[in-house]
Amino acid sequence: MAFDFKLTKKDLHSKARLGKITTPHGQIATPVFMPVGTQATVKAMTPEELKDIGVEILLSNTYHLYLRPGHELIREMGGLHQFMHWDRPILTDSGGYQVFSHNELRKIKEEGVYFQSHLDGSKHFLSPEKVMEIQEALGADIIMCLDECTPYPATRDYTITSMELTHRWASRCKERLGQGARGGKGQEKQALFGIVQGGMFQDLRKQSAEEITKISFDGYAIGGLSVGEDKVLMYEMVDAAIPYLPDDKPRYLMGVGTPEDLVEGVARGVDMFDCVMPTRNARNGTLFTKQGKLGIRNAQYANDHKPVEDDCGCYTCRNYSRAYLRHLFVANEILAARLGTTHNLYYYTNLMWGMRKAIEEDRFGEFKKEFYKNRNLE
Amino acid sequence: MAFDFKLTKKDLHSKARLGKITTPHGQIATPVFMPVGTQATVKAMTPEELKDIGVEILLSNTYHLYLRPGHELIREMGGLHQFMHWDRPILTDSGGYQVFSHNELRKIKEEGVYFQSHLDGSKHFLSPEKVMEIQEALGADIIMCLDECTPYPATRDYTITSMELTHRWASRCKERLGQGARGGKGQEKQALFGIVQGGMFQDLRKQSAEEITKISFDGYAIGGLSVGEDKVLMYEMVDAAIPYLPDDKPRYLMGVGTPEDLVEGVARGVDMFDCVMPTRNARNGTLFTKQGKLGIRNAQYANDHKPVEDDCGCYTCRNYSRAYLRHLFVANEILAARLGTTHNLYYYTNLMWGMRKAIEEDRFGEFKKEFYKNRNLE
Repeated sequence: MAFDFKLTKKDLHSKARLGKITTPHGQIATPVFMPVGTQATVKAMTPEELKDIGVEILLSNTYHLYLRPGHELIREMGGLHQFMHWDRPILTDSGGYQVFSHNELRKIKEEGVYFQSHLDGSKHFLSPEKVMEIQEALGADIIMCLDECTPYPATRDYTITSMELTHRWASRCKERLGQGARGGKGQEKQALFGIVQGGMFQDLRKQSAEEITKISFDGYAIGGLSVGEDKVLMYEMVDAAIPYLPDDKPRYLMGVGTPEDLVEGVARGVDMFDCVMPTRNARNGTLFTKQGKLGIRNAQYANDHKPVEDDCGCYTCRNYSRAYLRHLFVANEILAARLGTTHNLYYYTNLMWGMRKAIEEDRFGEFKKEFYKNRNLE
Repeated sequence: MAFDFKLTKKDLHSKARLGKITTPHGQIATPVFMPVGTQATVKAMTPEELKDIGVEILLSNTYHLYLRPGHELIREMGGLHQFMHWDRPILTDSGGYQVFSHNELRKIKEEGVYFQSHLDGSKHFLSPEKVMEIQEALGADIIMCLDECTPYPATRDYTITSMELTHRWASRCKERLGQGARGGKGQEKQALFGIVQGGMFQDLRKQSAEEITKISFDGYAIGGLSVGEDKVLMYEMVDAAIPYLPDDKPRYLMGVGTPEDLVEGVARGVDMFDCVMPTRNARNGTLFTKQGKLGIRNAQYANDHKPVEDDCGCYTCRNYSRAYLRHLFVANEILAARLGTTHNLYYYTNLMWGMRKAIEEDRFGEFKKEFYKNRNLE
């Protein structure tokens, strides 16, 4: 099936909305959180486990896969879905963010960005056209335009220059769509999302949203946030862009975020999120619960018979005590990363499910109140 | 149910035999391979996955659990089975081997062994009585006597002294059995196995087997092998002990070994094996196949569409290419350890199943010939 987005319901008291994305690899109920599978694997997890948790779409990183094992190899192996044994939708980012965050030595030019590999220092060049070629080889259902993730803080002048480059690159990506050799068999055209930049300036966010939507994409991302600014500023920037994005296309807040960010994002009309937070925190022993974050390595849990979260239905909470989990984390066992990741992704997926249900039942406002009332660990 | 062993069949042309061990946590078909769950987890695996593979019994390490998280904690948590969410049989070793192999500073006395923790250098003392207390707190179905694992090489004099200490310690363990506070609920008496030592001297192996069996245990282990000696010598020592062990008790060759060792051990009348080889090798990217060992990190597998082993029924081989596995190993992903361990434990479990089936069908000799014929990778 071709890519499609249907807006199915709008909340009466906020901008929260329900939708359904259709892709060649199945449907996605929105608002949705996308776990990150950087190197063609969501760290510590099998695809079957992700499905059991209820994950409907993954994000994978173009920058990492381009460098290792290489997009040509993945195309040869039948595309990313087949390579990693995941038959549900995938979104790949453009690689831009990683080039900017992993590379001190990057050089941004009109034609694209020159950088060195974080693996071996080898020299590389990514242009809008190259990024499209790579993402076509990977064969994800949704692919992203190359953008410059404006650094924080940045002057207004720098932000304007950066934003305008992002707009020109977006046009070049759109032009190049569908011309590369696709990875994966029998798939339809890939959906291409544009990215709104504009740094921490409300008027530039508006301007960027207007210009990017003029080019016309299958969906719209808000990029360059959660880069060090405070929450109030981040939400202001989301609020500044959203009114200028069309209702009938999905909206994706990139690299965000905490459970609070997801609730605030949904309330502001965001449909899609991704973040390494649930998976990375899990591997460090930080587990998400309704009450807030729980540091499972803490000595207070050494002989605690309770599960991480009392009423949680995840595999970890159904079968293991905090005492056992703490032991695994302290002993640096692989199973610790697995059980922690399982719980955190369940928490995130369940949080999104709870929000969708609340919007459906016209009680998103109550859900949000309840969400904040429960958080007494922090 | 109380511990029991039934010898159900003897091979006509070798000493290979079939049996059934009954424990409070279920039955075990022998000959059996026991995966090692050192720190109350078989590294990278969940209990459900081990069951799917067909694992019927685990080994866990008393030394490690005593030091971390501590046997008292595990008793308080309901015993090792409940702590680690494994409801099938468990065997714990005595901790002796780890004290001897992890500790340069150990001091062996008549009363027991003084040593320092490999974790923090703290000072500890293990005696036969203490080892029984710890293993009773852990609550495994089968527990082991404290022995001195005679170093290799060792003089005849040292070996005799060491062996005699092992015999005296065995008597003390037997005497102490059942007097400690048990971990785990509703379990019957634990089975206690004696250990044959005697270094690399055939007559001492015979003598040790005779003296240990005189004390009378629920099963008999052959210890102190696979410590650096060559294979011929190891098999000679097994051959020297086996005739002096009773037919109606299980025989356990400790810390062994390679697939070849399992086949040779079974042919010599061994019923039980344990070794870290399948799990540890898996994490290093060394995978077992009928043809021999496969180093999956090798560049030759970079774009190999085939599974690790063509006719293998394991989860890894059913779903992933060598190319993807190699990528995971090179990228140092946790899923690499999982998929590798799954395959290797399936290989080991399946090898034991093949041997049991062959003994059942009076074709163990052919099985062994076929086993060696296939091995062309090494």
